[in-house]
Amino acid sequence: MELQKIYAEVIAWYKELSMVGHIAEILHWDQRVNLPKKGLELRSEENAFLEGFIHRRFTEPSMVEKVRALADRIDELDEDAGPNVREIKRGVDRATKVPTELVEAISRHISLSSAVWEEARRNDDYAHFAPFLEKTVDLKREEAAALGFADHPYDAMLDLFEPYADEKSVQSLLDDLRGRLVPFYHKILGCRRRDASAVAGKTYPIEEQRAFGLHVIEKLGFDFEGGRQDVSAHPFTIGSKRDVRITTRFSEADIGQSLFGMIHEAGHALYEQGLPDEHLDTPLGESVSLGVHESQSRLWENIVGRSLPFWRHFYPHLQAAFPVHFTDVPLDAFYRAVNTVTPSLIRTEADEVTYNLHVILRFEIERALVAGEVAVADLPELWRAKMKEYLDVDVPGDADGVLQDVHWSEGMIGYFPTYTMGNLYSAQLFEAMKRDLGGFEELLEAGEFAPILEWLREKVHRHGQRFRAKELIERATGAEPGAVPFMNYLQGKYGELYGL
Amino acid sequence: MELQKIYAEVIAWYKELSMVGHIAEILHWDQRVNLPKKGLELRSEENAFLEGFIHRRFTEPSMVEKVRALADRIDELDEDAGPNVREIKRGVDRATKVPTELVEAISRHISLSSAVWEEARRNDDYAHFAPFLEKTVDLKREEAAALGFADHPYDAMLDLFEPYADEKSVQSLLDDLRGRLVPFYHKILGCRRRDASAVAGKTYPIEEQRAFGLHVIEKLGFDFEGGRQDVSAHPFTIGSKRDVRITTRFSEADIGQSLFGMIHEAGHALYEQGLPDEHLDTPLGESVSLGVHESQSRLWENIVGRSLPFWRHFYPHLQAAFPVHFTDVPLDAFYRAVNTVTPSLIRTEADEVTYNLHVILRFEIERALVAGEVAVADLPELWRAKMKEYLDVDVPGDADGVLQDVHWSEGMIGYFPTYTMGNLYSAQLFEAMKRDLGGFEELLEAGEFAPILEWLREKVHRHGQRFRAKELIERATGAEPGAVPFMNYLQGKYGELYGL
Repeated sequence: MELQKIYAEVIAWYKELSMVGHIAEILHWDQRVNLPKKGLELRSEENAFLEGFIHRRFTEPSMVEKVRALADRIDELDEDAGPNVREIKRGVDRATKVPTELVEAISRHISLSSAVWEEARRNDDYAHFAPFLEKTVDLKREEAAALGFADHPYDAMLDLFEPYADEKSVQSLLDDLRGRLVPFYHKILGCRRRDASAVAGKTYPIEEQRAFGLHVIEKLGFDFEGGRQDVSAHPFTIGSKRDVRITTRFSEADIGQSLFGMIHEAGHALYEQGLPDEHLDTPLGESVSLGVHESQSRLWENIVGRSLPFWRHFYPHLQAAFPVHFTDVPLDAFYRAVNTVTPSLIRTEADEVTYNLHVILRFEIERALVAGEVAVADLPELWRAKMKEYLDVDVPGDADGVLQDVHWSEGMIGYFPTYTMGNLYSAQLFEAMKRDLGGFEELLEAGEFAPILEWLREKVHRHGQRFRAKELIERATGAEPGAVPFMNYLQGKYGELYGL
Repeated sequence: MELQKIYAEVIAWYKELSMVGHIAEILHWDQRVNLPKKGLELRSEENAFLEGFIHRRFTEPSMVEKVRALADRIDELDEDAGPNVREIKRGVDRATKVPTELVEAISRHISLSSAVWEEARRNDDYAHFAPFLEKTVDLKREEAAALGFADHPYDAMLDLFEPYADEKSVQSLLDDLRGRLVPFYHKILGCRRRDASAVAGKTYPIEEQRAFGLHVIEKLGFDFEGGRQDVSAHPFTIGSKRDVRITTRFSEADIGQSLFGMIHEAGHALYEQGLPDEHLDTPLGESVSLGVHESQSRLWENIVGRSLPFWRHFYPHLQAAFPVHFTDVPLDAFYRAVNTVTPSLIRTEADEVTYNLHVILRFEIERALVAGEVAVADLPELWRAKMKEYLDVDVPGDADGVLQDVHWSEGMIGYFPTYTMGNLYSAQLFEAMKRDLGGFEELLEAGEFAPILEWLREKVHRHGQRFRAKELIERATGAEPGAVPFMNYLQGKYGELYGL
């Protein structure tokens, strides 16, 4: 009885923290979507205030004590309370281990570092950014030491984004993938069948792009009564289940950017909207990891949204919406155009085959950086060498090379591998889903997306954080996470496209 | 020295409260402009949380004690600290009198009540809303009792929106106005010269309305780097000086709704954007009362925005933006059309002459409601009777009658009279401004709005809450607030328009 009372108190406290976290998310969304220029300084103060408030509440000694008391008797808790306490304790442990001064030092440094990164990228001037990156690495290493880790400081960094993952297993997964992917990609590079002319060189009116994209994500199952879609410079998803907001950016020259971008963010949103009502604002009602989140967005964006049967269904609608652009373009040409494999400089514009090579390169570099195996000053060279080796691309300048991503400038070291883990998970989930559902292609062709969403709800969404990411994937697919299903998927699809 | 230290501490604490208040305002704006349907319940919790937080912090005994200690020695403070302490003490006194549970109960009730009101108005179903209004009145009476009042519970409610005003003086001001206004209006009703055909019966594309409206308010001085303009069901303005957000609604059939609505809200925004930088987030950097706020919006909307010289300047631009609509319409016909005095059902669409009759009616009803002199169930009948008596209008249904305004659904009882006080202030400020500036009509005709804005900045905006509303108006105009300047303005303008 006593235990139940403490649990109820902890949950009420945690729910209030979730709510304040949601307020912070709405302000973050507002900053990206709405904020007038002169409002930025005030908003920064508001963000810092909310962060400070959450941190103080999360480390309140009386509540920390209660959480630990529950964790000590976790075996006496029921099947819902157990995982909730496990995850709340994880959060409390993290929050209490890092000294407030270090949290503040990181936050202060990152404000500067982001501004400097923007300048450095604009001026293609890596040397300007290098000392700030150096300090970021030092601070993050200090944070890792405070948090503690088993083998490698990178473990602690990774754990922020992909809980329970560690450097060793991620490295072996990505090594395995790279070993399979690089030769496959080089085989494609040898082919001549690259043709994006069906979509390139045209001008697509923004309003029509928006309308068509909204139509597609509504068909996929996005609930507009529990979410919305807006425009921002960099697409993202925020939300609680009841208010999930996705953004996109439009380019008149590139219909794919907004279209696949909207499907991608809708994939994230469908996960949030599928979390269980009865556990809202507790860990059992929260997404499990960035990797699993990315598996949802990439499954909808690529495995569903770039497939031939998907376009058998939607292409007539697209032709009706853009008659000037597509009336004379056969479906097959369109399908090939949106699945062109090309050497590319920029990760966010990369196709399904090359995308993970971009990620592996970043993982290897940041891992070595954290281990002290490479110096900050040597990153541009290392970047060039790896781009040449993996992607056969010559990097003309650092702005489109080592400076291209925002992550390091914001202290997000350990984030990149979750992109590739998401891709691997997505293919593995797809294999299992095909087995379970049968007639997957027929569903897509008929525009029947509900059974696919239902399967994901059942196997992934409804569990919240009940299982760890690895266990969740194993339970859903019957196998440990690996690179083989993803390679099978690529070989099937691109083998056919490129006649390998 | 000690006193200065306490003052600095109080100001830092007050600024944090202002910041949290701004977070609440942004969430409120988001609720009206963006929030998906299913997000309402969570948002209600968030609103209640923030209000509770502010209230708890505002009533922290150690800080309350410091504020009172400062107030006891207010004569020793300098000319800025004095008014700041006076107003902070007022706020603290109010806050300490109302129990936190009541604040939270009101906030929670109001989130629901607004949603119910929206449904009730949509379905013309007053009975659906009535129990919520009943509870609102009960809660507000409880609040008034906690706050205390001299003569009438309405004093306490009014004081929230028009500080230092009381029921007795407002009633006598409004009685005086009604006595002059009703006969004047009935004289106009006897004339035949009503002709809105220059603007009526046409369809105005929304995007062109938006573009033209934005052009106008930018010319008036609205700073888009420190604000934005959006769409909501009921137009409003929120903001701190650095991030002032106004909204409007568009009707394809009525260009006046968005155009004059945008000028009105821009008038509010110009006040906020004109508050003194050096006093931001303290009372000296805050607006003084809703009545004074409304004087700014109405001055720009009506006295400036519906004047003949204003349209001498803007009409060619309007004709260029809407050639189909206005090429064949002479300026004079347009001017008469947007200044037609008509019996009307809806306050927000009422002309300058009838507008205050709508307000007086509401004031009389809510005053009686609070005094227990009329029951919630009897409001529709009372509404109909007064609409007939003052405006000569028959009310067909409650959606366009007692349900038309958002205020009561949000617990804003005591708010309505500030609209009319704003109108009275605006005419009084206008008389003084004309004397000071000279050549007012020439300025408008030349599209020179800066001197007008400068005069308002100098006489009203820059003072923040240094003076009480009544004193501010007296200092700016040399006379106590009264109904005569407003009647002079109406008689001048409409006497000419209607050949009285």
